[in-house]
Amino acid sequence: MPSYTAPVRDTRYVLEQILGIERYSNLPGFENATPDVIEAILTEGGRFASEVLHPLNRSGDEEGCTRHADGSVTTPKGFKEAYDQFVAGGWTTLHSPEQYGGQGLPSVLATAVTEYLLSANQAFEMYNGLTQGAMASILVKGSDEQKQTYLPNMVAGKWTGTMNLTEPHCGTDLGLIKTKAEPQADGSYRISGTKIFISAGEHDLAENIIHLVLAKITGAPDNVKGISLFIVPKFIVNDDGSLGERNGVSCGSIEHKMGIHGNSTCLLNYDNATGYLVGEPEKGLAAMFIMMNAARLGVGLQGLAQGEIAYQNAVAYAKERRQGRALRPEEREADAKADTIIHHPDVRRMLMEARAFNEGARAFVLWGALQVDISRKAQTEEERIAADDLLGLLTPVIKGYLTDKGFDAAVNSQQVFGGHGYIREWGMEQFVRDARIAQIYEGTNGVQALDLVGRKLPKDGGRAIQAFMKMVGEEAAAGKGSSDTTVAALAAALERANGDLQTASMWLTQNAMTNPNNAGAASYNYMHIMGIVCLGLMWLRMASASSAALAAGAEDADFHRNKLITGRFFADKIMPESNALRRKIETGSESLMALPMEAF
Amino acid sequence: MPSYTAPVRDTRYVLEQILGIERYSNLPGFENATPDVIEAILTEGGRFASEVLHPLNRSGDEEGCTRHADGSVTTPKGFKEAYDQFVAGGWTTLHSPEQYGGQGLPSVLATAVTEYLLSANQAFEMYNGLTQGAMASILVKGSDEQKQTYLPNMVAGKWTGTMNLTEPHCGTDLGLIKTKAEPQADGSYRISGTKIFISAGEHDLAENIIHLVLAKITGAPDNVKGISLFIVPKFIVNDDGSLGERNGVSCGSIEHKMGIHGNSTCLLNYDNATGYLVGEPEKGLAAMFIMMNAARLGVGLQGLAQGEIAYQNAVAYAKERRQGRALRPEEREADAKADTIIHHPDVRRMLMEARAFNEGARAFVLWGALQVDISRKAQTEEERIAADDLLGLLTPVIKGYLTDKGFDAAVNSQQVFGGHGYIREWGMEQFVRDARIAQIYEGTNGVQALDLVGRKLPKDGGRAIQAFMKMVGEEAAAGKGSSDTTVAALAAALERANGDLQTASMWLTQNAMTNPNNAGAASYNYMHIMGIVCLGLMWLRMASASSAALAAGAEDADFHRNKLITGRFFADKIMPESNALRRKIETGSESLMALPMEAF
Repeated sequence: MPSYTAPVRDTRYVLEQILGIERYSNLPGFENATPDVIEAILTEGGRFASEVLHPLNRSGDEEGCTRHADGSVTTPKGFKEAYDQFVAGGWTTLHSPEQYGGQGLPSVLATAVTEYLLSANQAFEMYNGLTQGAMASILVKGSDEQKQTYLPNMVAGKWTGTMNLTEPHCGTDLGLIKTKAEPQADGSYRISGTKIFISAGEHDLAENIIHLVLAKITGAPDNVKGISLFIVPKFIVNDDGSLGERNGVSCGSIEHKMGIHGNSTCLLNYDNATGYLVGEPEKGLAAMFIMMNAARLGVGLQGLAQGEIAYQNAVAYAKERRQGRALRPEEREADAKADTIIHHPDVRRMLMEARAFNEGARAFVLWGALQVDISRKAQTEEERIAADDLLGLLTPVIKGYLTDKGFDAAVNSQQVFGGHGYIREWGMEQFVRDARIAQIYEGTNGVQALDLVGRKLPKDGGRAIQAFMKMVGEEAAAGKGSSDTTVAALAAALERANGDLQTASMWLTQNAMTNPNNAGAASYNYMHIMGIVCLGLMWLRMASASSAALAAGAEDADFHRNKLITGRFFADKIMPESNALRRKIETGSESLMALPMEAF
Repeated sequence: MPSYTAPVRDTRYVLEQILGIERYSNLPGFENATPDVIEAILTEGGRFASEVLHPLNRSGDEEGCTRHADGSVTTPKGFKEAYDQFVAGGWTTLHSPEQYGGQGLPSVLATAVTEYLLSANQAFEMYNGLTQGAMASILVKGSDEQKQTYLPNMVAGKWTGTMNLTEPHCGTDLGLIKTKAEPQADGSYRISGTKIFISAGEHDLAENIIHLVLAKITGAPDNVKGISLFIVPKFIVNDDGSLGERNGVSCGSIEHKMGIHGNSTCLLNYDNATGYLVGEPEKGLAAMFIMMNAARLGVGLQGLAQGEIAYQNAVAYAKERRQGRALRPEEREADAKADTIIHHPDVRRMLMEARAFNEGARAFVLWGALQVDISRKAQTEEERIAADDLLGLLTPVIKGYLTDKGFDAAVNSQQVFGGHGYIREWGMEQFVRDARIAQIYEGTNGVQALDLVGRKLPKDGGRAIQAFMKMVGEEAAAGKGSSDTTVAALAAALERANGDLQTASMWLTQNAMTNPNNAGAASYNYMHIMGIVCLGLMWLRMASASSAALAAGAEDADFHRNKLITGRFFADKIMPESNALRRKIETGSESLMALPMEAF
């Protein structure tokens, strides 16, 4: 019943008019990302998402994955055929290096397309998403031989990848992991242990699955410093590149979950499986964070993706469903017994909140993805460091804020349907269930908030956050002078929100050292202030760009006028929240922590 | 896997120390509600909920209801036996009039027990809840003969009831209903039409089902003024009270829903079914609102109930699961590799938000239920009117705010579990799915907000809201002078929140007439300010009572100290939100409504 259309026009607006992607044409890969190429990739990617992947979204949810007695797993009907088409279309190769068969395109462009795939079918896209994450680690930390052995087939989508971190007794606290790696004479390791919640851990889409596994080498410290990263292929790869014997890793069960039923979430048993060390021993956490950071960006994108498809369907319903009369007589449709519910302000509130979030989040996540490219490819170290600073700071916000608000957008969009939103047939409740996981995996949003406040803020003496607040302050100050009332209003709202961020940052500086619980108590609210400031900044940039476009007599004036209206809504109805969040922070940790353990 | 313990101590605290139920012992029914009776009913009700109903909650969710080819519906395994025990224990009879076999106890006490039933198994309790709603209409609007015919068996739980409002093309806008009632020579009517989303519409728990159905009598105005209410029993009741022939109502299908799978949500086809007019023709809406208001209170209670059981299980997990170290070294457990996650401030935040909500919501909803009793039974008209004013004002807030925040509490509690929260086996995701419906049915929360702002505020020249704000202002002013710092802090926070409410009310007065969309745009935020003020008021009363109890050397000093801590948390971490809501309201409807229809 639900439908999906990729927001290609909006993506192009962000890439071209907000990020000014043509300014980076001197960077490797960007030279190929001409407007024509961007247009073609977005349009074709959007078409693939809506025509091939989306029709399998609800059936995949209803059917789920099936584990057989021999440990094999079948994905829902149609997934295998769609995956073959996905591979044949080259969609797995977009931003991978050309030397391994990739197209070498910018990350930011791959991210843009991935939004569409995730909107259309999150459970399906995760098979590819995990592969991209696993590849990121091999690319940076793997040996040349490992790269040659694994990357070409992973880039091609012939093989997929996974990330194996969690064990039954530990998720966030990886120091507790028990999986063991015993060194062998041939330089390989024997891996034994149990990993849980392994997305795409076993399935029938690809010939081989390359598991990246955290384990402790015999004798290593039994804490976070003793962790190493290993490649454990489902089938051992022979020297000639052909598939050899089945490795000692098997799927013991698949989880029955709230959502993303089309993706197999596996318990994997490692029983003396052959593994190959990636990078140095006991440096596994650093290698893991490479895939983790890529994954966190991708999970933030899931928040937007579910918000977007939920919004699209809520709009369609609100324009069709008639119930009650518009509050203002002059807005009522003559001769109708009832008006469409999009006439009702409270329905508009839900739609506009989702819309303002989606458009702001799209700009935000693509801005973040652009920093990935700049941090790797910019010509000067200064530019690379500045982008890396920004990316480190923004990653937990992209993950935490966008998944929280994407979930809210999905819930609000479901609400627009009234009782019909609760019925499976309409598909809205699936968006809510699928969106929910993104707040949890790849580090819960609470962990993102702690990463932001405990690690990213103090890093390098606060260099990144100081630079960020300075940049925001300057853009807000410049915008306040605009003759466009929306630009000026957004700038003023952003200045206030940035003031809340500065005050909260100062409060943390003064209160977190004396009592670290103050930092822990503030972290979540702080992350949300950051989210509001980031989206506010994006909206200021979009309003400025659209205002300028209108002044220059742009052809698609309606598009730009609608941007200004939506930006104004964001300033009016969302940005006031930062003040309340700041006031909560200032009450500290006392009442939060005072209750004795036994009182709970 | 999840467990449930009825919070009997907390309920007694609210009934006895906050509401002072003994003060009403001069009202009919209250004379029987002695402390011993209250204690016995709460304890036994709690035991029944946790021992009989709760074990069927997850199995009922997994199995769901089954419709057979003949239109009959089977409830999940164990429901029938549990229902028989439920009836045998007299749990259907608590607050029904003694003349129909009820126990005639206060509504407030029945409400308290119902919270436990809903926590333990919402899908199950709804079979009873709908019956109570249907009975409410018959009690007030039915003829003596109808009361004699239907009420004794409904009170006894031998028959259940339903409410039939929604049709495929209309829910909120009842003026659009198409179901027809054709008058017959014998005074009965032939009812034909299709009703959807009928909870407990068909099942195997009871001998007969008494449907209360909205329909339009032939020739009646085809709008909201032409609606009449009918009794349509599944089996016609013979003059001697025995069951006669099967009536022309049948279950065409049951819905596949996001949650509450154990309750059958039916499409009912009425095909010349025999119906009996309740009350006067074309006065159906007023009769319907009697059951609707009772139902709305009950739905608000569902928000609390799901928040409570989700919180209880999150606490148990947070005290068991070890992950990471406490931020302050002095709080770390010696010799442990990791501390329990309840040590982490951000986990505490989620638990404390749920706890502060649950305890505040319990006081709030029981306070509302007490107004039901007072409005019916108080000796002076003045008291009855004051209680009725308050109840009318609070009902949409109880329904809307408590279900929104109960859903949040369930989501937060699920979040405490990390990845495990997303797995069905742990049961947390069911609480989220079950809680979600309460924001939708019996009038979406957006409709509640409109009812509050559009109907309840202006009623009688604003008498109810003025009296409410005055009362809050006086209690806050009195509390500010307290020597107890928590009482004083809560009073100050309440004064600020009440100030936001007053400012927002004033803004509405000034801006809603010129443009009704301003009222529509403000309504949802206004309802949430009201919710914060109401819970803030409850917390001020609880803090004052507990502070006094401590000063008087109460035996259970820990209980009262914990109340004060939780109240302080509410003042610190929740109440600042009213200010942001007020500021959103003041930006009006312009940016909300400005986007042209075709831009969506």
